[in-house]
Amino acid sequence: MSTAGQVIKCKAAVAWSPTQPLSIEEVEVAPPKEGEVRVKILFTGVCHTDAFTLSGKDAENGWFPIILGHEGGGIVESVGEGVTSLQPGDHVIPLYVPECGDCKLCKSGLTNLCTTVLQGTGLMLDGTTRFTCKGKKIHHYMGCSTFSQYTVVLETSVAKINPKASLDKICLLGCCITTGYGAVIKTADIRPNSTVAVFGCGGVGLSVIQGATARKASRIIAVDKNPKKFEFAKKLGATDFVNPDDHDKPIQQVMIEMTDGGLDYTFECTGIPKVMRAALESCHRGWGESIIIGVSGEDISTTPLQLVHGRVWKGSAFGGIKGRSELPNLVEEFLEKKLEIDLYITHQYNLENINKSFDVMHDGDSIRAIISLE
Amino acid sequence: MSTAGQVIKCKAAVAWSPTQPLSIEEVEVAPPKEGEVRVKILFTGVCHTDAFTLSGKDAENGWFPIILGHEGGGIVESVGEGVTSLQPGDHVIPLYVPECGDCKLCKSGLTNLCTTVLQGTGLMLDGTTRFTCKGKKIHHYMGCSTFSQYTVVLETSVAKINPKASLDKICLLGCCITTGYGAVIKTADIRPNSTVAVFGCGGVGLSVIQGATARKASRIIAVDKNPKKFEFAKKLGATDFVNPDDHDKPIQQVMIEMTDGGLDYTFECTGIPKVMRAALESCHRGWGESIIIGVSGEDISTTPLQLVHGRVWKGSAFGGIKGRSELPNLVEEFLEKKLEIDLYITHQYNLENINKSFDVMHDGDSIRAIISLE
Repeated sequence: MSTAGQVIKCKAAVAWSPTQPLSIEEVEVAPPKEGEVRVKILFTGVCHTDAFTLSGKDAENGWFPIILGHEGGGIVESVGEGVTSLQPGDHVIPLYVPECGDCKLCKSGLTNLCTTVLQGTGLMLDGTTRFTCKGKKIHHYMGCSTFSQYTVVLETSVAKINPKASLDKICLLGCCITTGYGAVIKTADIRPNSTVAVFGCGGVGLSVIQGATARKASRIIAVDKNPKKFEFAKKLGATDFVNPDDHDKPIQQVMIEMTDGGLDYTFECTGIPKVMRAALESCHRGWGESIIIGVSGEDISTTPLQLVHGRVWKGSAFGGIKGRSELPNLVEEFLEKKLEIDLYITHQYNLENINKSFDVMHDGDSIRAIISLE
Repeated sequence: MSTAGQVIKCKAAVAWSPTQPLSIEEVEVAPPKEGEVRVKILFTGVCHTDAFTLSGKDAENGWFPIILGHEGGGIVESVGEGVTSLQPGDHVIPLYVPECGDCKLCKSGLTNLCTTVLQGTGLMLDGTTRFTCKGKKIHHYMGCSTFSQYTVVLETSVAKINPKASLDKICLLGCCITTGYGAVIKTADIRPNSTVAVFGCGGVGLSVIQGATARKASRIIAVDKNPKKFEFAKKLGATDFVNPDDHDKPIQQVMIEMTDGGLDYTFECTGIPKVMRAALESCHRGWGESIIIGVSGEDISTTPLQLVHGRVWKGSAFGGIKGRSELPNLVEEFLEKKLEIDLYITHQYNLENINKSFDVMHDGDSIRAIISLE
């Protein structure tokens, strides 16, 4: 029996307030309005950004109560009025960076950012929410809210992907892998034979390593304070491993000495401002580029001479990948076995145990936990 | 009678100690050693960087006593052993960024910086000086020291130029004009139809405006607290004029509102860290690039999100122009009347009155003073 047009009751992990464990609740999910799509989420990853928002420090997305999650895979259940590019049954990845194709940014050809982005409000474009729980309105999260068995997202916030790809794997393309891999192949678009350093070897950093390997980097230095990460890094192609705790010197000096003057490219995946500075200052004079992927609410700083002497400071959001037009290609790369995903999945839980995924997040043995919502 | 191989006695402006006026002295200039060239300087500009070094705050180049000046034009008097690319009589511009053609940086094809740069020591490559005054050794400055009727520089620090070009004009290609113009056409390599803002409309900022005009920018916003600069800016192609003192809002907000979201490119020519931040944050989300040209010893800062949202922070030294292979082309552009220089020259002095050029430097009516050493 079709559920289209009806309110769906289902389970979701609700964050009622900051710093508290998520609460598994029955929620009501309203039908999609014009230009919206309701998606049955089957699997979702759990990302540091979810934890950051749950901490209460996220001024942009922290609207409590809220249903978190932005790294999901699912199947379209029903579509709202005017939706033409999707239909029930389509396999999809929700996008926290939409692609409307129509705005100044989308049309520029210079960025994957889009002005229809839903971040910053916790609501759909009409200023309301589709989620209710115990009579209370629950906020959306980054336009995704994948910690729910059903969610409503914008048509422009959905990538339609090849249904042959297992959703329990490619849900990680919703954030982690695309973010790191794209930062290398799209944002930095690195030259072959480059030297690369990656600061922080969690899921995003490992994906930077994958990207650097795919682009035939001559040297890939993995930097992490947790040496357990190096075994994953090595499997994905890292050639050198540096634990800053093993050195007395500032890490940028260590890197410059290791590489005869500095790296061609560095990627910052920790979200720590002083590491962002170290990553920039590890670059080679004259041409080194540092790409910030992690985010912090605190300022970053350096000396002007670092830039005047030819280093370039950039950032990357969702790897510079346009979600609707380019993300499906990464799914194809996975199907062609060019993109490794299995290695990332160190933990699996059902929705009832989603809080355990936050517990293991800072555990050195874990990269990603996948939550099954089936 | 040839002076080759002999010590030359001539006049120079010596900076005996920081913050004191320059002193016109008779100095002894030793013959060039291997790989060096002695140049008769006929004209030199006076730059804010000379004033900065004279202030005593320049940790990199401030070795007193010193002969300042790095924006000169002259004629080769004699060459040292092994010098093959230059001969007496060649018209030249001394380069504070050399081009050896042989080092890792020169060979990279990615930068105009060169590892043989003499900055940071105040001495020639053999660790000695060619200048003596009253029995005391006098330091070299940025490998140029153009405030002397004769100077000794590296062969790799000399651009041989077309002798048809008047040295009293094209001496300004030794720093000011090349720095600003090159930052646009080489470092940023701006797209046609771009929107550009220039923070600070001194000689370098005006040259940014020239570059933006040459590259057919659709809009060129000149920003300065001194509205007298706007008349020069307008002559060189600026389309909009903003005095931050006319606005209560932060200047980055003013710029973003003026331009429907921000500039495609901004250029920072003031050397003030908070202006550097404003220039970056005036860029359009998704693609705006900000190029730092000014230099400060203080840190610059911004939020990581500025970069993650697609803004790029770069710097430019000597406009990214390779001195020996590319600067001569700018001289040709001047001869073809594609490059304006005359407008910059607001004051002219002989060497005896060089201190007046520092006095007028902060005068709103002045852009550049040219010193005649003839």
